Order: sequence, then structure tokens, then C-alpha cells
Amino acid sequence: MIYLDNAATTLKKPEQVIDAVVYAMGNFGNASRGAHGYSLDASRMIFGTRQKIADMFGCPGADHVIFTSNATESLNMAINGIISPGDRVITTDLEHNSVLRPLYRLENESHISLGFVPSDRKGCLRLSDFEKLVTDRTKAVVCTHASNLTGNIVDIAEIGKIARRHGALFIVDASQTAGFVNINMEKMNIDVLCFSGHKGLMGPQGTGALLVRDGIEIRPFKTGGTGVQSYEKSQPAEYPVRLEAGTLNSHGIAGLSAALDFISATGIDKIEQKENRLLRRFYEQVSGVRGVTVYGDFSSSLHAPVAALNIRSVDSGEISDCLFREYSIATRPGAHCAPRMHEALGTREQGAVRFSFSWFNTEEEIDIAADAVKEIAAKY
Amino acid sequence: MIYLDNAATTLKKPEQVIDAVVYAMGNFGNASRGAHGYSLDASRMIFGTRQKIADMFGCPGADHVIFTSNATESLNMAINGIISPGDRVITTDLEHNSVLRPLYRLENESHISLGFVPSDRKGCLRLSDFEKLVTDRTKAVVCTHASNLTGNIVDIAEIGKIARRHGALFIVDASQTAGFVNINMEKMNIDVLCFSGHKGLMGPQGTGALLVRDGIEIRPFKTGGTGVQSYEKSQPAEYPVRLEAGTLNSHGIAGLSAALDFISATGIDKIEQKENRLLRRFYEQVSGVRGVTVYGDFSSSLHAPVAALNIRSVDSGEISDCLFREYSIATRPGAHCAPRMHEALGTREQGAVRFSFSWFNTEEEIDIAADAVKEIAAKY
Repeated sequence: MIYLDNAATTLKKPEQVIDAVVYAMGNFGNASRGAHGYSLDASRMIFGTRQKIADMFGCPGADHVIFTSNATESLNMAINGIISPGDRVITTDLEHNSVLRPLYRLENESHISLGFVPSDRKGCLRLSDFEKLVTDRTKAVVCTHASNLTGNIVDIAEIGKIARRHGALFIVDASQTAGFVNINMEKMNIDVLCFSGHKGLMGPQGTGALLVRDGIEIRPFKTGGTGVQSYEKSQPAEYPVRLEAGTLNSHGIAGLSAALDFISATGIDKIEQKENRLLRRFYEQVSGVRGVTVYGDFSSSLHAPVAALNIRSVDSGEISDCLFREYSIATRPGAHCAPRMHEALGTREQGAVRFSFSWFNTEEEIDIAADAVKEIAAKY
Repeated sequence: MIYLDNAATTLKKPEQVIDAVVYAMGNFGNASRGAHGYSLDASRMIFGTRQKIADMFGCPGADHVIFTSNATESLNMAINGIISPGDRVITTDLEHNSVLRPLYRLENESHISLGFVPSDRKGCLRLSDFEKLVTDRTKAVVCTHASNLTGNIVDIAEIGKIARRHGALFIVDASQTAGFVNINMEKMNIDVLCFSGHKGLMGPQGTGALLVRDGIEIRPFKTGGTGVQSYEKSQPAEYPVRLEAGTLNSHGIAGLSAALDFISATGIDKIEQKENRLLRRFYEQVSGVRGVTVYGDFSSSLHAPVAALNIRSVDSGEISDCLFREYSIATRPGAHCAPRMHEALGTREQGAVRFSFSWFNTEEEIDIAADAVKEIAAKY
């Protein structure tokens, strides 16, 4: 079995991630909900993990790292907590439904106005379009760091400068890049950074984070028990409890913590180089094959470890099924929750077969996958 | 070490729960996000777990079981998704901040009107007060099944009848009772049932559920990727995807599934009997001790496995610390996120030391804890 659906979730986790979850499940109480050792052990681990995340992503402080259950929750918190009725928001055609649907809802219910930076047929955005659309009346720019469909990386450092120049807040969806490429909130002018823990960060499902720069006010999304200030009728104003209500997933966060250690010890640069090498190896073998269309722009040196393709006009679901049944290769077909991206690529009906790679994939697996694509292309 | 903070989270999980999480972390892809085996295995497990939950709680169908990250999220979804500006809502003094804070927010921002069924000094509610407060203008009754502080059980079957008679929706917080006592949505006229997976259900942290009766419309809380209907601008209308956005925590849910099997095999009746026996054994030893005040009503045959007490006027934090440091017994002091309950008991300043029991506690542990209370009471 060859697992090439790592952009959905990484299947293979570092061994210490599983060990950490097992340890947590046997030893951790409810974090911040008691003063006994089991609770304090969970609290300390969680604080330590906040610090690791803050350090990895250039976030001003551990207390500004908020744990969520996935990137979608982080993005809902950021979008619903920052954008107010009547606001103007700029976003892009590359976005996932986790950005689009919260924005569409606000457009519908709170009469915000949305501007979309258009994608070209290669899935690329132009910085000049951001320059045109982002004005002093813009409340926020919400942008993915990489398309989950094409893998094209967006130049968030430059977009951050544009947003900052106009006083717009910059909210970044790093679901496809966290753990794969270096991100620094401070240097890139990112105000809110959102990601999941179970993709490139190789942690357990049920984990995600929202990182918020100093001085940014995000209205609480969920409210409830915080273990502190229990007589206040409203959620405490301080981060992280401002945005965290109820029992934290200390079992999952313990696994994420171990995954962060693995990534730090390995080095994000090294991870990026290896995954990029796998991606290029795959791309070079399949891109010239007759009948195969690979989407996205591979001319840039930086590209998320994702390649989406189609074989002639065959439905992507049929190709993906064939890959799994006949070659034991797991890929993902269809829309990938990226409707505007498919419109831009002209693949709304066909969808696309996405191959996505991780640190644990091997060159041999890549070659088998590329050979399979070639064989299927010859058959259809 | 004796862990008696099971109302916060059960520390000891059945072994198969940990095994199931380990298996999931090595074998599950992203549920509903692909058609390959790893994704389908996760999807099948998740559907099967929905069915087990529906069966256990008398929910009309597996598709009406929504997975959340904890009970707080479930309650936020239910309260924010059902109650509209101007609505009248009846709730009680027994509620946790996971009910109170969402309601207070709506009171503040959406001008809903709140009616509170008062608690007496023993933490009891009177059904006649529900009869008085619930009228045909009431949109919903939101009520806990048991106080997380005193352990008093509320007669939700009777309250369900009152709510139904007046056409009010009945939202129940079963955080302290799910897995400990039989609950049947159909028979008890419960419209929405909310609970966490990591307390009495003995599953992993990061799990919870919301169960909704047929025909009840809950507006989406989070919106985002669903893996289906990706070209729709809004969240799909069908449950469960209507309320589930983003990657589900299949690792945690796998553990919860194994925990449900353990509970079913053991029998909820048997669990209730054992935990009740432990509770009574503790209560009988400490309730008559000079200087010890035990809160709540122990005259009823049904009582959640929770006993809160104080020793004279000593701060509950000091007693709880002493129990942990000198006796290695983990309890929880303070407010327990139940501000109105403390007001009713007259323990706002002192808080209370909560002892809460699980299936895995032993009579020997209970006796050690009771002896410790006696010793401390003699010292202070």
C-alpha cells in the first residue's frame, strides 16, 4: 500500500507521536482544571507545546497560541471573530471551503463585501491584483499559503506587506504548509495564522491551532468553562482562554508536541528539500506523458508537496479508484473543497486526482506511482 | 496515587480504548475525504460509532449524531444554533459555564430573555418551578442532567414532559451522566443531547457529541469543508455534515468507539450500581464527621458519582492541595465553573472540594480517601 493522500492527513506519524498519546491517555488529567499532579502534568505539557509552536512560527508569546480541533475551527474563529457587518474583505480563488464558507456566510448574513484575487489557468495569483484590491477600507486579507489542490505556494511575505501598508489584518491559512516550509508571523506581517496539527505537522487528528499577534482582538467563538474567572458572565478577555472553552484535547496535543520535536530535530529545511525532491521526481515522470494534464505552476523553486492531474477527460474518481484497486495507491479525486480553484483550472466537472507526499514517502513509492499513471494513461 | 477527579476527566481508560487509538493513528486516513481504503476505514469506523451512540441514547438515527471536540462545543452549537434574538429560554442554577456563558452572551447580544429555575441550599430544583416558568412563549429549556458540583440528578424525564407540553425544545447537558445512567432521548422527550466523550464514557479527550432529534433545525456553527456538495456556498443542510466542518478526529473517535463497546459489554446498570456503591461508601464515612459539610442531596437513590465537601471554613484549595501532597489523592477544589450553584450553596468564596468516582476506583481507595478527610478534619 502506498499512501499519497498526505494533504488530507498524514497517515504515517513519527513513532514518538503515538508513544506520547499513549502516555497522555494513561497519565494526564484535565489541564487547568485542578491542582493535582495529573492535571498539572497536562497543563505543563500544554504550555510547553504552546511555546514550541510560538517558537516555530514566530508568534509573540506562548499565550497567543490557541488550540483548536482543526484548521477549519481556527479559520472560523479568526473570520467570525474579526470581521464585522459591513466590512470589506479580500481573499483569493485558491481558498478552501474552510475560508470560503465562513466568508460567504458573513456576506449573506452580515453584508460584508468580498473581493477575490483571481487565479489564472495555472493556479497563480498576481501580486498586482492584491495591490489593486487591498485598500485602506479593507478590514482583512484572508489567504491560503498554498493551494490544497495545485500545491502552488503564495508569496505571503509580499501580501503581508501590502496588507500592513493599508492597515488591513492578514489572516493566513497554513494548512498545507505548516511543518513543510518556514513561516514567521513577525517577519511576514501575519496577524493570525491558522493550521491543523495532523497534516504536515504529523500530529494526531483532532488538533489544530490559531496564533494571534499581540493587540489583535478576536471575539470569542465558543464560550464556556475556562477553569479561571468562573464568576464572570463572559469569557475572560486574555488569550488563550478567551478562545478556548471546555476541556482541551491534551491527549492529541501531547502527540502534536512530540511531532513538533520530531520536526525540529529533523529540520524544516530538510523536510522541505526531501518532499520537494519527491514531488519533482513525480512531476518529471508524469508531466510529459501523453494524455496526462498536471495542474499548477512547477516553475517556482518552492511548491507544496502536492500534484494534481487528470488523464484525458476521464472522471478523476475513476482514475483514483483504479489507482487504489489495481495499484494499492491512495490518492484523492474530486473537488477537494476548492470550488473556485477548479473553476479557474476548468476542472469543475472532472475534478482532479491529487497525489500528496510526506516525509515518510520514498523514491521507490514515487516511481511506482508515476509508472501507474503512465500505465493508466496508456490504457484509457 | 488515587485519582478522584473523574468528573473532570476519567484518567483510567479501558485498555482497548488506548489500543483503538493506536490502531487508528497507524491506519486511518481522513474520513469522508477520499475513496481509498485508509479513508474508507476511518469513515466506516465513524459511521459505526454514530450508530453505537444513537443506539445507546435512543437517538432516531446515526446521521443525527454529530461529533464535536467536547461537550462545550456541543452546547455552543445547540444554544447558538437554535435560539434566536428575542427568544425566551428557561435554564437552572445548576448549570455549568458551558451552558451559562453561551446564554449570557445571547442575553447580552441578541436580547434573549432568561428564566432561572432556582436551586435550594441542597442543590435541588423543584418541578413546580419549571411548571411556572415554562410557558408557550418559551423557545427552549436548557438543563443539565446532573450538577457537576453536587452530583444531584435532575428528573429530566419530567422536565421533558413539561417542555413538550408547551412546545419548547429541550436541550440536555449530559456531561456528568452519559455512560453512568441510562438516557433515552425518545422516551425523555429530549430534542438535543450534549455530552463529552472523555468523562463517564471513558473515551479520549478531544471527543464529544451532539445528538439531535428528527425535524429540529440547528443552524451551522462552524462552516467549511465537508467532502460533499463542495460547490455549494453554504454548509449542506443534512445532518451530520450540517454541523461538522473540517477533518473529524478519527483517532479520538476510534477510542470512544472502543469505550462504548466496553460500556455496553459491562452494562450501564452495573456501572451505575458500582459507582453509586462507591459514592455511598464515601458519603457514609465522611458525612457525619465533625467539621465536614457535604453538599447536595443524598436522599435520592440516583446520584451522580460526585461528592463535594468542605472542612469548616478552610479554603477548598488548601484542603485539595493537602489531599494531594500528603495523601496522593487527586480531587478538585474551587468553583468548578458552576457559579450559580456555589451562590445557591453559599460557597462562593470557599469553593468546594470535589471527589468524583469512576468504574475503575476501588473500595480500598474510597476508604483511604474517607480516612484522609477524617484526619484533615481533626487537624484543622
